[in-house]
Amino acid sequence: MLLISQFLLLLLLLPSSISFTLLPHSRSLSLPTTTATTTSLSAKKKVIVLGGDGFCGWPTSLYLSDKGHSVTIVDNLSRRNIDTELGCQSLTPISSPQTRVNAWKEVSGKTIDFHNIDVAKDYDKLLALIKEKKPDTIIHFAEQRAAPYSMKSTKGKRYTVDNNIGGTNNLCCAVADSGLDVHIVHLGTMGVYGYGTSGGEIPEGYIDVTLPGGREANILHPAYPGSVYHATKCLDAIMFQFYNKNDQLRVTDLHQGIVWGTNTPQTVRDERLINRFDYDGDYGTVLNRFLMQGGMGVPLTVYGTGGQTRGFIHITDTTKCLEIAMENPPKKGERVEIFNQIAETRRVRDVAQMVATQTGVDMKLVPNPRQEAAENELDVSNRKFLSAGLSPTTLESENGLFSEVIDIVQKYKHRCDPEMILPASYWNKERAKACEGNLDIEKHMKKETKV
Amino acid sequence: MLLISQFLLLLLLLPSSISFTLLPHSRSLSLPTTTATTTSLSAKKKVIVLGGDGFCGWPTSLYLSDKGHSVTIVDNLSRRNIDTELGCQSLTPISSPQTRVNAWKEVSGKTIDFHNIDVAKDYDKLLALIKEKKPDTIIHFAEQRAAPYSMKSTKGKRYTVDNNIGGTNNLCCAVADSGLDVHIVHLGTMGVYGYGTSGGEIPEGYIDVTLPGGREANILHPAYPGSVYHATKCLDAIMFQFYNKNDQLRVTDLHQGIVWGTNTPQTVRDERLINRFDYDGDYGTVLNRFLMQGGMGVPLTVYGTGGQTRGFIHITDTTKCLEIAMENPPKKGERVEIFNQIAETRRVRDVAQMVATQTGVDMKLVPNPRQEAAENELDVSNRKFLSAGLSPTTLESENGLFSEVIDIVQKYKHRCDPEMILPASYWNKERAKACEGNLDIEKHMKKETKV
Repeated sequence: MLLISQFLLLLLLLPSSISFTLLPHSRSLSLPTTTATTTSLSAKKKVIVLGGDGFCGWPTSLYLSDKGHSVTIVDNLSRRNIDTELGCQSLTPISSPQTRVNAWKEVSGKTIDFHNIDVAKDYDKLLALIKEKKPDTIIHFAEQRAAPYSMKSTKGKRYTVDNNIGGTNNLCCAVADSGLDVHIVHLGTMGVYGYGTSGGEIPEGYIDVTLPGGREANILHPAYPGSVYHATKCLDAIMFQFYNKNDQLRVTDLHQGIVWGTNTPQTVRDERLINRFDYDGDYGTVLNRFLMQGGMGVPLTVYGTGGQTRGFIHITDTTKCLEIAMENPPKKGERVEIFNQIAETRRVRDVAQMVATQTGVDMKLVPNPRQEAAENELDVSNRKFLSAGLSPTTLESENGLFSEVIDIVQKYKHRCDPEMILPASYWNKERAKACEGNLDIEKHMKKETKV
Repeated sequence: MLLISQFLLLLLLLPSSISFTLLPHSRSLSLPTTTATTTSLSAKKKVIVLGGDGFCGWPTSLYLSDKGHSVTIVDNLSRRNIDTELGCQSLTPISSPQTRVNAWKEVSGKTIDFHNIDVAKDYDKLLALIKEKKPDTIIHFAEQRAAPYSMKSTKGKRYTVDNNIGGTNNLCCAVADSGLDVHIVHLGTMGVYGYGTSGGEIPEGYIDVTLPGGREANILHPAYPGSVYHATKCLDAIMFQFYNKNDQLRVTDLHQGIVWGTNTPQTVRDERLINRFDYDGDYGTVLNRFLMQGGMGVPLTVYGTGGQTRGFIHITDTTKCLEIAMENPPKKGERVEIFNQIAETRRVRDVAQMVATQTGVDMKLVPNPRQEAAENELDVSNRKFLSAGLSPTTLESENGLFSEVIDIVQKYKHRCDPEMILPASYWNKERAKACEGNLDIEKHMKKETKV
């Protein structure tokens, strides 16, 4: 059997002689085993955060800046523009990116650069910025990230594909073009695996299979996306695999679960730093939507039977995972590194029950706007982050983060437009028809929430 | 065990309860077993051919029109524009699309409509045309199809991704939007499988695997593309899988080998109908390039050791395969149908030897501009087309097609620019460096071919 070092040597010597069956198994070499070790490894890095004005991008940028890394944000503010298009806004009063970085300078003394660049379109600007900044790491959040928006209309489908795939391809081209050895860290999604009953634990990115004739192989987990948004993340994975093979790009892909929460230790330091909180049917993630409904005193609308099992992670853990990924890049010539970025799995109706108990409102099952399995099991490996020292916050952690979100909802609920909470996107015509009854709930809801 | 009919019923009843492990195995139900049967099944269809002005699209359009189908061509003439960009042209003097369809009307009495629409950009026009024509089938050739062009420059990479993925997504959106039950037939490539030693026969699209724990599954063959072009076809496959699952689109994906030849029984009926013949380093397929070099009396330039094994098919068989695919659509609710569209596999140096023998020139090994395995085996199933009655033309078939191409080269070689034959695209900086010596060959070649 080949040693990994021999394998890498082979990779350098032979032009692409590696087929998918010969890929080395997942490395677990350089990951530190305790948080203490992680900290000691942290040489300060230059990092560009694409999509650094968004829900995950902003707190991640602040966290990395706080830890002493040099942070540049790139964002074309498309998420803010989509708010305008949809006629909704973050529950929390987010500041402009300029105000945000100025406030951060005031409270931390640290500078974050902000550049308004469209990663999917402004290729030359992106390349010039990479050449100028010579970053160690580029974190890639610059994708349309709501499955419902990606299924809302032809416009949403086309924008999601053009933006997400065009952006990822531009990034890979630009890094290859620059000639710099930049580590790309990309935010993927658990949804690339699908939520079907594959029948066993979902491994981190690659799965062992036996092919006909008894041949053993370790392949990218089969893609089974449930929306155009999820499909773009599957496409990203193939693009990364290709550019890794052809140009030896070093890439880490993070398959994240559903994020909950709002603030982090950095965003609470000044109200101008507050993170966005989406509660609308398109961008609000399921737990945040339930918390909003609980706060408004209206029933929690659970899609279908609520039997969908999903992965969850708190926004503070997202920021920590990004640093761990950044600190542990694959070596040149190693295949794409993939982590599952979740803290726990939960069934949606159990999450609803938890919120119902805390807020004293009822649950209401409504027809599912999504084309998806009514019930599914989900068993996911997240051993890589755990072994790298992550101590995840769960929904029942006793650190007050759950009640912190409830406090946010109470504080800002005067800014909530209750009409926006219900689903506004349907996966296909059959699902739209099945959901016609939801209009009655909406009427009921407006009545309930009238001041 | 579920019967297929029960499975389909389940599919209709349950919202997307199907995971990748539960996919039904490849159907082999409706394929006729002889050519005679195929013909008798041929109800005449309304078909839109996207990319119908191209190397495969034009002869396919004529073939289908000749067989009595009603054909509409959509093409934005991007292939002609790229000729202008690269400073080269088809060896054969192709007519404008308007002249082509007028000539076809003269010689056959049949009308082919031509619409200049950019499928990746003009979504509204595409949708309007589909609604107006109500086609039974849309054949999708409208993709940038040269691996070297897709690797030539950042511009080539970005155009290939934006055009190919944007086009496929637009097509799927438009068919779903139209509410019509249109069968999509897409031209994929053998390159989606990669040419690595996966160690066994490459099946048609889906492969049986055993997952950890002994679970049996039948999954899309793992993607292992060797260029940005090939990557886009892998991305297409995931898009089709998604739209098939979500909107029950009926899709056939044809993983084609390298096409050789020029003319078909339809294109020879008038010189204004002649098909294009590309011999340049970017768009010329390997056999056609060798034939061009043989015709010019200069050495055949074989990349690397010539040990690459590839699938080959003659252009007349391409046209027949398209009709077979069109006549045998998957049923509503069935998964994406995938055929391997090749006649035979050959090692590149053996193909070169054959041309060398026929034309009396030498072979010359030159450094490989591509990042690929120096040598590979390739064992491919093409049983579906064979069982549907295809009797493929091979390179050694005694039907004169090989010498027909030599005649084309002799007839038009005064139009050849020999500088264009050599590779002009390099997969990465290392490959470009390795190929620097190729410039000497180029000088030699110019000298040899001076009049």
